[in-house]
Amino acid sequence: MEHLGQYDLNCDLKNGVNMCCDEESFVKEINTTSIEYAVKVLLMDLGEDINREGIIKTPHRVAKALFEGTRGYKQSAKEIVEGALFPEAGVDSTKVGHAGELVIVRDLEFYSYCESCMLPFYFKCHVGYVPSGQRVLGLSKLSRVTNVFAKRFQEPQRLANEVCSALHQGIEPAGVAVVLQCTHINIPDTESNFFDSNHKGLVETLVSSGSGVFENNDADTWGDVFGLLKVRGIDKDKVHVKRSLDQHWCPSLSSKIGEINPIMITAVSSILKSLGEDPIRKELVGTPSRYAKWLMNFQYCNDIYVKLNGSLRSGVDDSLHTNGEVSFDDKELHSDLNLPFWSQCEHHLLPFHGVVHIGYFIPKGFHPVEKSLLQSIVHFYGFKLQVQERLTKQIAETVSPLLGGNVIVVVEASHTCMISRGIEKFGSNTSTIAVLGRFSTDLAARTSFLESIPNATSL
Amino acid sequence: MEHLGQYDLNCDLKNGVNMCCDEESFVKEINTTSIEYAVKVLLMDLGEDINREGIIKTPHRVAKALFEGTRGYKQSAKEIVEGALFPEAGVDSTKVGHAGELVIVRDLEFYSYCESCMLPFYFKCHVGYVPSGQRVLGLSKLSRVTNVFAKRFQEPQRLANEVCSALHQGIEPAGVAVVLQCTHINIPDTESNFFDSNHKGLVETLVSSGSGVFENNDADTWGDVFGLLKVRGIDKDKVHVKRSLDQHWCPSLSSKIGEINPIMITAVSSILKSLGEDPIRKELVGTPSRYAKWLMNFQYCNDIYVKLNGSLRSGVDDSLHTNGEVSFDDKELHSDLNLPFWSQCEHHLLPFHGVVHIGYFIPKGFHPVEKSLLQSIVHFYGFKLQVQERLTKQIAETVSPLLGGNVIVVVEASHTCMISRGIEKFGSNTSTIAVLGRFSTDLAARTSFLESIPNATSL
Repeated sequence: MEHLGQYDLNCDLKNGVNMCCDEESFVKEINTTSIEYAVKVLLMDLGEDINREGIIKTPHRVAKALFEGTRGYKQSAKEIVEGALFPEAGVDSTKVGHAGELVIVRDLEFYSYCESCMLPFYFKCHVGYVPSGQRVLGLSKLSRVTNVFAKRFQEPQRLANEVCSALHQGIEPAGVAVVLQCTHINIPDTESNFFDSNHKGLVETLVSSGSGVFENNDADTWGDVFGLLKVRGIDKDKVHVKRSLDQHWCPSLSSKIGEINPIMITAVSSILKSLGEDPIRKELVGTPSRYAKWLMNFQYCNDIYVKLNGSLRSGVDDSLHTNGEVSFDDKELHSDLNLPFWSQCEHHLLPFHGVVHIGYFIPKGFHPVEKSLLQSIVHFYGFKLQVQERLTKQIAETVSPLLGGNVIVVVEASHTCMISRGIEKFGSNTSTIAVLGRFSTDLAARTSFLESIPNATSL
Repeated sequence: MEHLGQYDLNCDLKNGVNMCCDEESFVKEINTTSIEYAVKVLLMDLGEDINREGIIKTPHRVAKALFEGTRGYKQSAKEIVEGALFPEAGVDSTKVGHAGELVIVRDLEFYSYCESCMLPFYFKCHVGYVPSGQRVLGLSKLSRVTNVFAKRFQEPQRLANEVCSALHQGIEPAGVAVVLQCTHINIPDTESNFFDSNHKGLVETLVSSGSGVFENNDADTWGDVFGLLKVRGIDKDKVHVKRSLDQHWCPSLSSKIGEINPIMITAVSSILKSLGEDPIRKELVGTPSRYAKWLMNFQYCNDIYVKLNGSLRSGVDDSLHTNGEVSFDDKELHSDLNLPFWSQCEHHLLPFHGVVHIGYFIPKGFHPVEKSLLQSIVHFYGFKLQVQERLTKQIAETVSPLLGGNVIVVVEASHTCMISRGIEKFGSNTSTIAVLGRFSTDLAARTSFLESIPNATSL
């Protein structure tokens, strides 16, 4: 389950001082060749020009991120725990094994990689134990040990079990309790899903694992854990006890794969191998196809484009243009808010997703443009290798002729690349604005539109 | 303002792979000798036995944390920005410098060190810019550049200015806007404050800094930034424009220092020097005294102890003990919730603070014990070099004889050591439970007490 220090992770600075480092000190000569090669193959199969400036370094960035995101394979939970156990008398040694004492660290945030589809998933971890033998563990070690197992290809229940088991072996306590709230991105994978307003962009699962006095799910000791978690909205009854075979946590396991170019499958398999994984272990067998299929979502979407082109033409026919001479006093500001989108960051091949808000003016007596047309345009520019700045600009320039030339577009997004790669800024999100026509000079109109945007709930 | 790569931060693994590393790979031979020596001096001046097991490694941990927390002195913002600028056509190049485009990354969380008192402070950063010259910056670099300046001894306004200026130089955009929401712990520093229920445990300040099109605080472009931040509850009118001389952000600047042992002052000065700071730069002149004074808060508190001892005796006189034979059906569960405490982690010499909840049974017709007595006990055990597990146990064992022997104590705390030292788990918090008497076997009583605890707001 655990690789015990085959690699010696020493970082030496030239001045003799060793430092904990982040990306700046990361890797100038990381052995990324084979992964870079595989990523180039994948990009070419998507029809991308691998020499264009935006993506020329993408293979290197993807390789670095994958090494960084799976560094747990080279780390040892045992070493973390050793030397961080402190003597501490319990309240009453006769009560050890009962609810006499409980230490629980709540709301630790992490990301891990889904073993089914290779995308990062986010989880919040609550981890506790009942001390025994008059020893307590430094609190930060509960977080560090969790991270060792998070930084591997995982599945929520196995992740919970591995953290629980490693802590139990390391601390030798009366028991360990682990509760994970996991969130997986759910990109619509068929065209019909693109326009299904009920499509849920994120799927969640709650799992737990217990050892010792927590081994039995119905033990009183779990009552204390969930008593303390209840104030954070976590309900014992929602814990996933045992997944039935037809229920999958990763959305990719429930969708049809179809035909995948075998060159792509081989390329993804070689990535898994380079990271030290075994591509033929049971849970990983279908992973290369599923990852390749996910990438294919962001290939040039001809079908949508043809439809979109038709809609754009009919949109222009009854456009708001003809009223260009109407004074702004006779026009009303209209806002179409929270149009969902999914896209893929071309710098890291990682998803970003969020909502688009579009504002424009409607002459009195006219109707707003169909929201579904705007949603089509948003999807069309979303399902590509993108950057948020360009997405915003492309949407603004495309809707502008339909909407009378005065347009404001705001894109609000969560970027998975911001939670991975050592940066791990979990709550962060990015807003971009593009304005055309009147909005570029009319502060009051911009302010009025920005005030119409509700508090971001979907990010 | 910035040290340009005097140190080459290369991390080599034995297998030729370089990795981003965290504490496991941190430093085995960090040159911490002089800081460790100074910390030993400080601990001895507090009256601690520097060879006891809980603190014998504290000098090493403190030194490591300080090096790690001030690594920004050795990092270069310029290097981070270089190579992360991507060509991206703007919406309309004639509008550059206007509100044509705005990119803003919100809710980035960091900690920094307060230059006035050397304690870590937390801040949330919102950073944006208007692109120019058809170049955009990789989004994660806004976070990385902020971290370079965060990992130094700072003051909120200077921090905002330095981030703004470094990004402006690096991106050469139409303008950069930085908004910081900073939070500083506010430990009561006189005995009267210990018991002031209006004492605010945290102080907050909101600062901003702008360049180019954001140079003028009243520019329309700021309207867009605050338009997007308003949905997150941030109000332009609350930005601290210019602090008047008698207003201080760091609470230690407003409190009297009194006499400090000069040996302690010299020890703290030597720490600043070892980290590469200049202890006689204007803002740091009083810092060693203020840090030493803060440490003194956690010296053996004889005054409180004497008073407490008196209270305990009178408490026992009219205790609930005499009713030990009354059946539990005639007793009611009583909860004293949210008793604030401040303490200092003995492993890292960093503050942890939060609330204590105490539950016990009262025979019908009897009054609960004075809440102020329980608060005294909480403060007495808080103002020490502590660990949360021991604090919980000590409170439970001390209040037990006063409260009839059946007691449950829950401590909920935020640990500054969890946000620093490379772990940076910002939202995390730790709960500990200790139970005595009936609570150890009666699940219903424990559940009923845990349900009485409100959602933690003060953490």
